[in-house]
Amino acid sequence: MKRFVDLAELPREEVPALLELAERLQREPEPRALAGKILGLLFLNPSLRTLASFQAGMARLGGSSFVITPGQGTWQLETRPGVVMDGAAAEHAREGIPVLASYCDALGIRAFADGRDLAADLAETTFNALAALVDKPLINLESAVNHPCQALADWKTLEDFGVPRRGRLVLSWAYHPRPLPLAVPSAVLHMAALRGMEVVVLRPEGFALPPSIMDKARRAAALSGGSVRESEDRREAIAGAHIVYAKEWGATACYGDAAEEARRRAGLTGWCVRNEWFEPAARECRLMHCLPVRRNVAVADEVLDGPRSIVRRQAYNRLPVQMAVLYRLLKGL
Amino acid sequence: MKRFVDLAELPREEVPALLELAERLQREPEPRALAGKILGLLFLNPSLRTLASFQAGMARLGGSSFVITPGQGTWQLETRPGVVMDGAAAEHAREGIPVLASYCDALGIRAFADGRDLAADLAETTFNALAALVDKPLINLESAVNHPCQALADWKTLEDFGVPRRGRLVLSWAYHPRPLPLAVPSAVLHMAALRGMEVVVLRPEGFALPPSIMDKARRAAALSGGSVRESEDRREAIAGAHIVYAKEWGATACYGDAAEEARRRAGLTGWCVRNEWFEPAARECRLMHCLPVRRNVAVADEVLDGPRSIVRRQAYNRLPVQMAVLYRLLKGL
Amino acid sequence: MKRFVDLAELPREEVPALLELAERLQREPEPRALAGKILGLLFLNPSLRTLASFQAGMARLGGSSFVITPGQGTWQLETRPGVVMDGAAAEHAREGIPVLASYCDALGIRAFADGRDLAADLAETTFNALAALVDKPLINLESAVNHPCQALADWKTLEDFGVPRRGRLVLSWAYHPRPLPLAVPSAVLHMAALRGMEVVVLRPEGFALPPSIMDKARRAAALSGGSVRESEDRREAIAGAHIVYAKEWGATACYGDAAEEARRRAGLTGWCVRNEWFEPAARECRLMHCLPVRRNVAVADEVLDGPRSIVRRQAYNRLPVQMAVLYRLLKGL
Repeated sequence: MKRFVDLAELPREEVPALLELAERLQREPEPRALAGKILGLLFLNPSLRTLASFQAGMARLGGSSFVITPGQGTWQLETRPGVVMDGAAAEHAREGIPVLASYCDALGIRAFADGRDLAADLAETTFNALAALVDKPLINLESAVNHPCQALADWKTLEDFGVPRRGRLVLSWAYHPRPLPLAVPSAVLHMAALRGMEVVVLRPEGFALPPSIMDKARRAAALSGGSVRESEDRREAIAGAHIVYAKEWGATACYGDAAEEARRRAGLTGWCVRNEWFEPAARECRLMHCLPVRRNVAVADEVLDGPRSIVRRQAYNRLPVQMAVLYRLLKGL
Repeated sequence: MKRFVDLAELPREEVPALLELAERLQREPEPRALAGKILGLLFLNPSLRTLASFQAGMARLGGSSFVITPGQGTWQLETRPGVVMDGAAAEHAREGIPVLASYCDALGIRAFADGRDLAADLAETTFNALAALVDKPLINLESAVNHPCQALADWKTLEDFGVPRRGRLVLSWAYHPRPLPLAVPSAVLHMAALRGMEVVVLRPEGFALPPSIMDKARRAAALSGGSVRESEDRREAIAGAHIVYAKEWGATACYGDAAEEARRRAGLTGWCVRNEWFEPAARECRLMHCLPVRRNVAVADEVLDGPRSIVRRQAYNRLPVQMAVLYRLLKGL
Repeated sequence: MKRFVDLAELPREEVPALLELAERLQREPEPRALAGKILGLLFLNPSLRTLASFQAGMARLGGSSFVITPGQGTWQLETRPGVVMDGAAAEHAREGIPVLASYCDALGIRAFADGRDLAADLAETTFNALAALVDKPLINLESAVNHPCQALADWKTLEDFGVPRRGRLVLSWAYHPRPLPLAVPSAVLHMAALRGMEVVVLRPEGFALPPSIMDKARRAAALSGGSVRESEDRREAIAGAHIVYAKEWGATACYGDAAEEARRRAGLTGWCVRNEWFEPAARECRLMHCLPVRRNVAVADEVLDGPRSIVRRQAYNRLPVQMAVLYRLLKGL
């Protein structure tokens, strides 16, 4: 494995191998496996789980890491090509990224969507421009429309809880005061389809995921024997489901238009996941969320604090699956 | 030892054992003792000594650490229960804390007093709510009314300088432009009482420490054979003292009332420790302070730069005593 | 070697020895050489290369590091002596620096020029005041008028590319919206003179380097057999040169006077290095820059992305030369 950027670019047997390696490293720790190896972590956006779990994962394997957070002790990085740099950014990614890569054995990069130009974000313009500058093993710590570390941790969580390969996963839109990026819904939708699940995207009118994201998931489902469909009918979608995966995202029809987005969002505060959503036909259904989650806005306390929530296991699983990714990238085994 | 949160909750023989262990680790380094172990450090408030000394201490013992500072590369953490999270905080401690704890072998948390509700701060409402979410060894990096790492380092400093067990320690209020928390005065008062010292709390009218803090210290003194009393008479208090421990704190009678606090504070700028405080009856008396200290506001240059100041040793001692705490928590020996 | 603060204070044989050690550590890694050693890094100003490469360098040698960034999770440090600290800074360097030094085996400090008082900056008033508080091996991570880590990495880069010892290096002023410090031009000028090169300082009228900096370089050139001169004639200076080292700096005749500086700077935007600068008489000439560089402001894309740019190698070389410095300071060999 040369880089971990998108589950879709891995050979089909790679995901089960990574999950097996993650299990093995939990069972039989290898505290010297990556001795002397260095992971660079570049965060162009905030983080909690990714920041902590990658540092912890390298340390558990005997390696080290450093963190660079432009704007926090480091100047802003310019990412646009050809620009006359007379603004706030003091350094261009064309220098900054290769230099950071030259100091480490693998580099992780987080670069969220710009949120202005949908086509550019769907094309991963920013992340791909940064990735092209890296000649070392590369890890996607979340890009405009992808978050493979989250997707892999979620896959492991589904295994941990014995969710059937052909089970139903409802990816449900949830309310948030602001439009959030498409990275997690895209990555989770694709992951569940790749796993062979019956995936239902449940969302209010106007919040459909972009066709290219739906198509990518459908292609994965075609290979795995799963299925992907959309619904606006909450009762129908959840009845019989194994998993509701709650996630907030923005309306792509008015991408970057804050006023129109706010208008569409008004009146949707009812999309806060409550226990009644699961009554009466999905009582055993689990609740997943990638975190961070706004309590009583996206998901109610009663759900997060009740037995159906498996969000903490999802977050914990970031550690073992990322250790497996690091092991594969840096040891090549 | 399961957690290090308050000297008062440790068995009586634990403090001498920790101090002995700290000495031993200074004399006979154990650079592989905590190999493979990871310390998580969560700072809800700024830090210099704690931040540097815990990272250094883990490294000296062969372990690793990661630092999470909400608001600096990580979003704000909400700590209030049951709140509708439609404000600035993107994540609730109920998710964030257990997740961070799951990535490490021990977690340290710093959560200062809110400074608005005295009863809530005295009850350690915030820190206790966070601590309840941690199922790993826990270290208090300073809470509303406690700072056990500072207290233990100060105890070691008293030993290092041969201050008699029954000696007199004057905990003296010192001026500061703003009301500072009660954590250090509370912790130092309790520590000195627990050590068996004659403790005098010297403070201007209106700046008495809360009864619950005084009572806790008196209970410790009753066990140790020490004593605790209050004074407003600087000359009387300092005459014959072995230690003046200078500390800034707020007026608890007007807790959270900035205007009234400023009124009380006006006219107290004379409470800046100067060499003349020690004349003529306490010439050998040492000056302690937990740092950071505002020079020529709380303590004059002439004192800090003179032979009676032992503030740097106090700060250095954070390292060996915290190494002992980490060793006990993570090795259990 | 007790400290690495200025190439000028090292014995003459030290630089070649460091460069040889850097080569050796690249060729024959010593992943346990600094096991158990701790480097403290104090950044009073932002950083990318220095921050990442020192952490990576310690890790490559088996050691650890911690980073303190006042204002980012740590309060501001006051550096002026004798001041009444009733402003924003909560701690004085007189406490903060010795305390940090006591937690580590070597301390690196970055303290840029204040940019107000030229004489004070030329005298390294701030850095020297901080350095005087450190009783451990000390590394200058960039001070008002020095950056020895950059200078040593640049020397190695000149060796790597086979630039003749007597070759010509043109230190060329480059445009920047704001006046930048003198640290890198001073350090590079001195380094090239010390190496024995023919150094030409090319700058517009009014941007001469201060006499004390020119004199220091001339003294180095006198020892090494090199030479130092100034020029305003770009064509003459560059014809036949081996290296153009582009660097932005402020006008010292109006140091600290923003309005006058802006007036002098207007009309100098043509000082953005372009390929035509090298035509026809310096086609093989390389381009160096310490980074960060504002593209199309100080140096054009066509130069940075073309074959004459060796800026990435300069940045990469920070790692091996700093590993050599750490090795010498902490192992003494």
